[in-house]
Amino acid sequence: MKTPHLEKRMKMDRAALAAFLDAEFAQVAGMFAIDDLRPMGVTVRLLHDERHLRPGGTVSGPAMFALADVSIYLAVLSMIGPRALSVTTNCAIDFMRKPAAGVDLICEARLLKLGRQLAVGDCLIYSDGLEAPVARASLTYAIPPDPPADPATAR
Amino acid sequence: MKTPHLEKRMKMDRAALAAFLDAEFAQVAGMFAIDDLRPMGVTVRLLHDERHLRPGGTVSGPAMFALADVSIYLAVLSMIGPRALSVTTNCAIDFMRKPAAGVDLICEARLLKLGRQLAVGDCLIYSDGLEAPVARASLTYAIPPDPPADPATAR
Amino acid sequence: MKTPHLEKRMKMDRAALAAFLDAEFAQVAGMFAIDDLRPMGVTVRLLHDERHLRPGGTVSGPAMFALADVSIYLAVLSMIGPRALSVTTNCAIDFMRKPAAGVDLICEARLLKLGRQLAVGDCLIYSDGLEAPVARASLTYAIPPDPPADPATAR
Amino acid sequence: MKTPHLEKRMKMDRAALAAFLDAEFAQVAGMFAIDDLRPMGVTVRLLHDERHLRPGGTVSGPAMFALADVSIYLAVLSMIGPRALSVTTNCAIDFMRKPAAGVDLICEARLLKLGRQLAVGDCLIYSDGLEAPVARASLTYAIPPDPPADPATAR
Repeated sequence: MKTPHLEKRMKMDRAALAAFLDAEFAQVAGMFAIDDLRPMGVTVRLLHDERHLRPGGTVSGPAMFALADVSIYLAVLSMIGPRALSVTTNCAIDFMRKPAAGVDLICEARLLKLGRQLAVGDCLIYSDGLEAPVARASLTYAIPPDPPADPATAR
Repeated sequence: MKTPHLEKRMKMDRAALAAFLDAEFAQVAGMFAIDDLRPMGVTVRLLHDERHLRPGGTVSGPAMFALADVSIYLAVLSMIGPRALSVTTNCAIDFMRKPAAGVDLICEARLLKLGRQLAVGDCLIYSDGLEAPVARASLTYAIPPDPPADPATAR
Repeated sequence: MKTPHLEKRMKMDRAALAAFLDAEFAQVAGMFAIDDLRPMGVTVRLLHDERHLRPGGTVSGPAMFALADVSIYLAVLSMIGPRALSVTTNCAIDFMRKPAAGVDLICEARLLKLGRQLAVGDCLIYSDGLEAPVARASLTYAIPPDPPADPATAR
Repeated sequence: MKTPHLEKRMKMDRAALAAFLDAEFAQVAGMFAIDDLRPMGVTVRLLHDERHLRPGGTVSGPAMFALADVSIYLAVLSMIGPRALSVTTNCAIDFMRKPAAGVDLICEARLLKLGRQLAVGDCLIYSDGLEAPVARASLTYAIPPDPPADPATAR
């Protein structure tokens, strides 16, 4: 896989992303942990929790969708800075294997395009400790127009 | 839109589907209500609930995904009978408009194919009372092999 | 299915769309015929042609993709006027049944969203004369910014 | 990106795949060249050809779809042996950048799942010589039941 050419600089680090998530998405923030952050990519962990389970003890599809969605969102924010209004416009997700019971899920997300209006990324989701991915997803985010040059909102 | 040709008979009615949902998916059953059931189609309501909200008071993407997912699942079960092991293999979803604040979401789901191994359906999701859809989704379900001819499990 | 609320007026009729296709997409224009045009919707026919066939005599996946793509493109153009630069950004397609041999394919396309920057539509594709759809597709188009107010290009 | 764990052995090499393509898909075989083949992965080249072009001289969406489709198909065949009846059931594709004019397209494809009934793979497509991908795609193939144990067809 070729490495995307990067000229852009990152605008938020791991601590800033985690704080943003806590502040803006309080209802879901406890579900996720950011394991790693890099230019155009992030690794996010869905913490094992009974609430995400389906019959048989495996993580539900909606919880995996949420993991993919938040991962690409965080990858976008890390590059463009905090803008709560970025919205997912599209997601295609393939559920390939049953997640292992009782473990976290790990999402490896990367941005493939970061344009002015649209960002596109994809993810592979793994059961922690296992090699074969349980799901893959690709997502598109619409990026709102640049905010006014106000340091309070635009950093 | 042409009407799919139907020879198959429905295997579960609305009450049976609701009971199945309560029994097998207790953690999410309270989120949904079945408004209407018909051959190869179902209308499912996502009940307004603070837990599904995102900043700005609108329903989150994962909650809409869950609504689409459960709707096609219920449509499949109504035609093939209760088999908890049917699994979503693929979903493509487009988020088109911001849902209205403070109202239920309504999902109109239909099956386009009901094969022996795969079922394909699509959905339009509306804010209750509004005409423009907020999201569309298409989903594929893998149908497990026929269960043994045991009335207790195969009904 | 609810009818989308329409305020916009159509900008091109069937003859104008056909002429645009001939002029701008000469290499594929002979493949398609416009059967019907309506607000936010179009019916397009993929004319039977040996070049689109796969082993077994059925229409190939890429030809069905092309049919869905051109149908949504024509539906968008009919509403916004001729802008050759509108581009497909995303497509999700499900191939559900083998097309019948030796017949045209019919694509029923509708727009679900027509925003300033993005249009979203979906399609059902049928073998001419058969009731069960052979494929479904959803597509997103990015709409370029308004052209300058020049009657020659903006009509 | 983790490397998928592989136990399966490859059933066709590059020459066998190319011969299969020529024999079974004569109408499109001249469009493609196999640059590289590896376990669970293949690199396929779409040869520059005026017939695939759109206004502006760039490769059309359907041609990119065809490239992704044939790439995953070849990756599947390399692992399971020649079975012309494997069929694409689903594709999600994102068109991210305009391809460069006048050059081949290169598709890097990998299989993420190779089950008994379904195979799932994804692709990144590049303009030859450029680093940023022009498109990404994910595809699902339905694999027909094992053929009878006849060396002539099952190799």
